Amino acid sequence: RKRILITGGAGFVGSHLTDKLMMDGHEVTVVDNFFTGRKRNVEHWLGHENFELINHDVVEPLYIEVDQIYHLASPASPPNYMYNPIKTIKTNTIGTLNMLGLAKRVGARLLLASTSEVYGDPEVHPQNEEYWGHVNPIGPRACYDEGKRVAETMCYAYMKQEGVEVRVARIFNTFGSRMHMNDGRVVSNFILQALQGEPLTVRATNHPLQDFIFFFPIVCTLLVKYTALKMYCNISSPVNLGNPEEHTILKFAQLIKSLVVSRSQIQFLPEAQDDPQRRKPDIRKAKMMLAWEPVVPLEEGLKKTIQYFSRELEHQA
Amino acid sequence: RKRILITGGAGFVGSHLTDKLMMDGHEVTVVDNFFTGRKRNVEHWLGHENFELINHDVVEPLYIEVDQIYHLASPASPPNYMYNPIKTIKTNTIGTLNMLGLAKRVGARLLLASTSEVYGDPEVHPQNEEYWGHVNPIGPRACYDEGKRVAETMCYAYMKQEGVEVRVARIFNTFGSRMHMNDGRVVSNFILQALQGEPLTVRATNHPLQDFIFFFPIVCTLLVKYTALKMYCNISSPVNLGNPEEHTILKFAQLIKSLVVSRSQIQFLPEAQDDPQRRKPDIRKAKMMLAWEPVVPLEEGLKKTIQYFSRELEHQA
Ligand SMILES: NC(=O)c1ccc[n+]([C@@H]2O[C@H](COP(=O)([O-])OP(=O)(O)OC[C@H]3O[C@@H](n4cnc5c(N)ncnc54)[C@H](O)[C@@H]3O)[C@@H](O)[C@H]2O)c1
Ligand SMILES: NC(=O)c1ccc[n+]([C@@H]2O[C@H](COP(=O)([O-])OP(=O)(O)OC[C@H]3O[C@@H](n4cnc5c(N)ncnc54)[C@H](O)[C@@H]3O)[C@@H](O)[C@H]2O)c1
Ligand SMILES: O=c1ccn([C@@H]2O[C@H](COP(=O)(O)OP(=O)(O)O)[C@@H](O)[C@H]2O)c(=O)[nH]1
Ligand SMILES: O=c1ccn([C@@H]2O[C@H](COP(=O)(O)OP(=O)(O)O)[C@@H](O)[C@H]2O)c(=O)[nH]1
Ligand SMILES: O=c1ccn([C@@H]2O[C@H](COP(=O)(O)OP(=O)(O)O)[C@@H](O)[C@H]2O)c(=O)[nH]1
Ligand SMILES: O=c1ccn([C@@H]2O[C@H](COP(=O)(O)OP(=O)(O)O)[C@@H](O)[C@H]2O)c(=O)[nH]1
Repeated sequence: RKRILITGGAGFVGSHLTDKLMMDGHEVTVVDNFFTGRKRNVEHWLGHENFELINHDVVEPLYIEVDQIYHLASPASPPNYMYNPIKTIKTNTIGTLNMLGLAKRVGARLLLASTSEVYGDPEVHPQNEEYWGHVNPIGPRACYDEGKRVAETMCYAYMKQEGVEVRVARIFNTFGSRMHMNDGRVVSNFILQALQGEPLTVRATNHPLQDFIFFFPIVCTLLVKYTALKMYCNISSPVNLGNPEEHTILKFAQLIKSLVVSRSQIQFLPEAQDDPQRRKPDIRKAKMMLAWEPVVPLEEGLKKTIQYFSRELEHQA
Repeated sequence: RKRILITGGAGFVGSHLTDKLMMDGHEVTVVDNFFTGRKRNVEHWLGHENFELINHDVVEPLYIEVDQIYHLASPASPPNYMYNPIKTIKTNTIGTLNMLGLAKRVGARLLLASTSEVYGDPEVHPQNEEYWGHVNPIGPRACYDEGKRVAETMCYAYMKQEGVEVRVARIFNTFGSRMHMNDGRVVSNFILQALQGEPLTVRATNHPLQDFIFFFPIVCTLLVKYTALKMYCNISSPVNLGNPEEHTILKFAQLIKSLVVSRSQIQFLPEAQDDPQRRKPDIRKAKMMLAWEPVVPLEEGLKKTIQYFSRELEHQA
């Protein structure tokens, strides 16, 4: 039984992680500034003796006593992290420094929720953990991509110099219940559009032959399981966590359309600037270390997410 | 006549910049924590009515009133920036945020001294400003490379979001008087070794054919001239400032050996981890914008630097 801090614990991934760690019997402290997260995501734990929720911004120092830190606080979807790029950078730089300072002071192990975006628009497929990436340092996505890259740099600097135990999970696109309906990511967009009978917005690439990028997200509950395993494993170097299955965005749109039984059209939009053309995790390292099961219950996950979004829409109405 | 802040102004490049701007009649405030800089480099200005020297660390906020900021504070040579990687990262992240916050508050234009290291170990030659770079985010040089990359990201975030006027100079290797004798860079190493009759340490690469990397630094006084021009030019996007002339490290060692008239041997050492194999600035943008003169008085610059180092050695003895 450990005292565990989850920054960003009121968000999408963080709240599922909270569920898992509470169910495992730990003491969980969630720290969140509710920028994209919501109290509702963890309200079922309010009042539980092992649970604490602190409204706090990680850009400010935090002095508490814990054994482990899952550091997830950061906006994650392009519209959210581009909404206030300066704040995104501060959260990923000063926020990560503060959490590493805390980890150093109390001797806690820290897991950073990093991202496939450290690979940028990759020129090598699939991406393994040795790949240095292809990131535009001054493009519109840089506040997030470079913020996460330097957050990783900080982790290994504190490890080497101060002996802080760090773990880095490079998370690829994820979906599931409690995703913010308007966070603008592909899964939430398509489900919402399908449910509301609006056109599914598929962004075409500039390659005339390879018509659409390849892409398949990982189901959040699986991701959370591997993230917790990564915290306990002995290897401090980065590990990819994601789904290596590939389909086109168009196929993905069609799948969601058919699961929702929607009459939505499919609409083709131009590509966004610096948008990765293709992303595919090499997950051999995760398989070896975390006994990865390549059984990815995608349809089941999608059905649950569609159910969740339907309820949310009812709740709103 | 402007009120100008130079962070890192007691260092090698910063002190030459101080000379130029003082000579142009400006009011200059130097802020430095003297980590690698020295009071001696600017002592000839102490007592001048236009000059002020503040012993201050840019990781702490700074509230002063200025019109322009040259933000140079950061260790620059590999042994110096690897000495305390955490501090290097804090200086480049929090330090840059503080200077951008200052620039925003007082409406000052800020020039960031960035570096060719944002290109990492480049896979494209020569490097133009559009190149996204090839940087290991968790390697031994990352504290500097990723620190500078995210510092650039911050500059453009403050420009877009807060209207701060920014200028970014990507500086390639530079040499000249007031280089720290023991800063471990190639020019200071070779001159010191040649003067002291010790072997010149040439690091060989792993390529059997391309025996040594190509490389030629820019003379500091020229660099300072272009940096000041960049501050005043209308283009906010990054500009390379460097010498595109290429010679092998070995030739460079031989040139210094002959200029010093030294009996030193040349010694071949193994390559350092993640050391760039080759670096060559594409300076077309600088040429167009700053009326670049490709007359690079290398030998003359080297002779002056050798003189400076001889005097320093006498001073020490
Ligand atoms: N979901 C994905 O596909 C994905 C992929 C790669 C990486 N990640 C990473 O996983 C983490 C969680 O992502 P998510 O999808 O759950 O996003 P999310 O937006 O749902 O969760 C992020 C949480 O962090 C909180 N937060 C943001 N800034 C904060 C600050 N300064 N102080 C305190 N709290 C702050 C938000 O309020 C929110 O609760 C993020 O670090 C993200 O970068 C997610
Ligand atoms: N010299 C080069 O070849 C070269 C190449 C590319 C970029 N640059 C950049 O130019 C700038 C100056 O480099 P330099 O060669 O003169 O190095 P330098 O080490 O001589 O100068 C750096 C100065 O910054 C000061 N400093 C460091 N950390 C500080 C902090 N936290 N607060 C206040 N002051 C601090 C040091 O004391 C020193 O005076 C650096 O930003 C460097 O990254 C230099
Ligand atoms: O329990 C702690 C310890 C440190 N910090 C913050 O973490 C940062 C980095 O810590 P570190 O020990 O590296 O910095 P130092 O205090 O030595 O400047 C500091 O700025 C503190 O604000 C924190 O938030 N909680
Ligand atoms: O409505 C949308 C939203 C996203 N995408 C594409 O889906 C991929 C994943 O984008 P998302 O924003 O979900 O995540 P990112 O990986 O960019 O953070 C990208 O290629 C987007 O261009 C799309 O086609 N339609
Ligand atoms: O004159 C100033 C104004 C701001 N700052 C610092 O610059 C940082 C970034 O400034 P910004 O305005 O973005 O931050 P805010 O004050 O809004 O958090 C702040 O943390 C301040 O510490 C400073 O050193 N001098
Ligand atoms: O004593 C030395 C120091 C450096 N170098 C090489 O010179 C180049 C420039 O290194 P330096 O440390 O001067 O600058 P950097 O560009 O790495 O900051 C690199 O390829 C080094 O391996 C060398 O051969 N001998």
